[in-house]
Amino acid sequence: MGIVVQKYGGSSVADATSIKRVAQRIVATKKAGHDVVVVVSAMGDTTDDLIDLANEVSPLPPGRELDMLLTAGERISMALLAMAIGNLGQEARSFTGSQAGVITDAEHGRAKIIDVTPGRLQAALDDEAIAIVAGFQGVSQTTKDITTLGRGGSDTTAVALATALGADVCEIYSDVDGIFTADPRIVPNARQIPRLSYEETLEMAANGAKILHLRCVEYARRYDMPIHVRSSFSDKPGTWVVAADDVLKDTTMEQAIISGVAHDRSEAKITVVGVPDKVGEAAAILRALGDAQINIDMIVQNVSAAATALTDISFTLPRADGQTAMTALARLKDQVGFERLQYDDSVGKVSIVGAGMRSSPGITATFFEALASAGVNIEMISTSEIRISVVVAENQVDAAVNAAHEAFELGSDEVEAVVYGGTGR
Amino acid sequence: MGIVVQKYGGSSVADATSIKRVAQRIVATKKAGHDVVVVVSAMGDTTDDLIDLANEVSPLPPGRELDMLLTAGERISMALLAMAIGNLGQEARSFTGSQAGVITDAEHGRAKIIDVTPGRLQAALDDEAIAIVAGFQGVSQTTKDITTLGRGGSDTTAVALATALGADVCEIYSDVDGIFTADPRIVPNARQIPRLSYEETLEMAANGAKILHLRCVEYARRYDMPIHVRSSFSDKPGTWVVAADDVLKDTTMEQAIISGVAHDRSEAKITVVGVPDKVGEAAAILRALGDAQINIDMIVQNVSAAATALTDISFTLPRADGQTAMTALARLKDQVGFERLQYDDSVGKVSIVGAGMRSSPGITATFFEALASAGVNIEMISTSEIRISVVVAENQVDAAVNAAHEAFELGSDEVEAVVYGGTGR
Repeated sequence: MGIVVQKYGGSSVADATSIKRVAQRIVATKKAGHDVVVVVSAMGDTTDDLIDLANEVSPLPPGRELDMLLTAGERISMALLAMAIGNLGQEARSFTGSQAGVITDAEHGRAKIIDVTPGRLQAALDDEAIAIVAGFQGVSQTTKDITTLGRGGSDTTAVALATALGADVCEIYSDVDGIFTADPRIVPNARQIPRLSYEETLEMAANGAKILHLRCVEYARRYDMPIHVRSSFSDKPGTWVVAADDVLKDTTMEQAIISGVAHDRSEAKITVVGVPDKVGEAAAILRALGDAQINIDMIVQNVSAAATALTDISFTLPRADGQTAMTALARLKDQVGFERLQYDDSVGKVSIVGAGMRSSPGITATFFEALASAGVNIEMISTSEIRISVVVAENQVDAAVNAAHEAFELGSDEVEAVVYGGTGR
Repeated sequence: MGIVVQKYGGSSVADATSIKRVAQRIVATKKAGHDVVVVVSAMGDTTDDLIDLANEVSPLPPGRELDMLLTAGERISMALLAMAIGNLGQEARSFTGSQAGVITDAEHGRAKIIDVTPGRLQAALDDEAIAIVAGFQGVSQTTKDITTLGRGGSDTTAVALATALGADVCEIYSDVDGIFTADPRIVPNARQIPRLSYEETLEMAANGAKILHLRCVEYARRYDMPIHVRSSFSDKPGTWVVAADDVLKDTTMEQAIISGVAHDRSEAKITVVGVPDKVGEAAAILRALGDAQINIDMIVQNVSAAATALTDISFTLPRADGQTAMTALARLKDQVGFERLQYDDSVGKVSIVGAGMRSSPGITATFFEALASAGVNIEMISTSEIRISVVVAENQVDAAVNAAHEAFELGSDEVEAVVYGGTGR
């Protein structure tokens, strides 16, 4: 049988008991005849605790040293997991990112994987051992220094190793059963999605669904590596993330027009009011934000009122960047000559995602009618080929998600009992 | 100026405050014009905490994985120390044992250093950076796995790097001002020894003095690397451990006959009573202990009582090995035909150490007279060229140490105020 790569997050290895439970699952996979490679995150709050320690000794720790520090977290969890597996009678060998051949550039804290040379992992598998690999970390090709991959790093490690080893599947474990048609905490009858294309998963992830990181899905899409999103607390099948052509395989269902509803409460909206409607003014504003390293999401420019030749430019951005953005824009006031800035962090984004919308007219109308019926006011709109997003007042997010979920008949007949943060249904 | 290697133990880097204090000392050394390499242990109780975690997941963790786990401790302390130094405006780069070129054999948990290739440290020094190295760890030449050096490993790392880099001195920092003529907790007017030969230091260390580990002193002696034992809490000169020829340099003092009095309460005494006085019986007993991996220290065989042709064999060993030794010996009872075993863990060893005793007759008489005057009964005796050790009742150890210290006039006129575990005098 083939190689299975499994990734367990921090909550799955939070303490000795969890580690022993995960070890049993891994051994069961091995005994089922697979070669198993496991990617593991740091235990529970370890990374946060290490960051706190760093801040105690230095207000601005150098990236090289911060990476050296943080990689201690996975070193601890992977060694403990290997011990727990050994205690069940299977040999397990733990490997740092560097030992596993995760070669990166030298951008500390957000290194990119540029090569994977998993010779030592393959040797361990050839010896019938289970290979345990530290997620989130690698080694710089040029400086030979230890690097970390940044957010979503462990998921990306897992997909990259699965690809390099030619694995059959990359299983990503968390405390959630899979990807749902909406957040079950908001929509009680939300349904687990059995299969989802890479593209839809990317849109869900980019618009607030928290199961998989963009980066890992992008990597999987590029190399067509199937991801199986599962709960480490149950044996139920989770959500398969696969190529669009494979979504309909092994199922008799017609493709859903809309696969799911995502929402995001992490953004704020800034409006630049009274911008002179001249060539280059919008560019100057965007340049200032870019120089301040701020990623803006949606952007809307009103039609200019002819009488005044003034327009408004609104955009959304991560709330965490709000202060920086306002400061950068305030410095532009005289140069651009706008009237004032408005900052609103009481907004939320609701998105419907589905590959089926390409071939189904009228989706936008259905979506907006549903929102109107629920009394939800739309503040901004943006679309992609397989997604429609709206910005609404933060206190209307739940109503908007439910309205969309119902309008596209995404719910199951039964209400999901327990889904998040528990022991599965 | 030359290279200085400094080693800081776990109590010197126990928390953020301690790390910042140590960082200042390191920066001061750098600013004085030295190239500085720092070897650091894990913070405070980190290693014990990690061992506890390991025992929670596995009763007998594999050595390879235990080493992977424990080396996380130094990884954390060295990165934090590098950050703290960076915060003082000096560049510091941390290196794992592997990165620092500490090449070992593959004996996990007690690896021996077989090569040191400190190219990356030298490159850091060439860049005017301070190099911070994880103590206690290396990488196996054959398996490429991470290894730990076992007890005294960080001190040994420091001496090995100092030797490989051609450093002027290896400074070993702890919370004690240096090596003393006796434990100041027992002898209030004990004096700090300014210089001590490698040989005398080895005898002190082997007989209970806890400042330096045997292994590190042996390494230093082999390569003639001066060690400066100092307190990280004061700027006072500590004790220099140097070649015998160098002990008298820079001092007008005549060499002391006795350098210090060491004591050890960690041993037990086993007596095999009524052993037939035949060829090979003692050998059988020692073979059984050797097979059980027990290191015995002193050994004494009584003169046989002619009437019975029976003798007694007594030896001392670490108390921790007492149970194992008694079990191994009990299995020999019928084969050897001894009468019974006596176990006594209420013993202590008191040793006087001094290179001067080679050329001074009457030392033993003075020592024993002093013990007799103090009412101390001698149970066993052993000697080397520069040491005389006696085993006494554990509750007479303090009296014996004080009597010897006074008989050889080792004390200073003043009583030491604070020496152990504090902020220095």
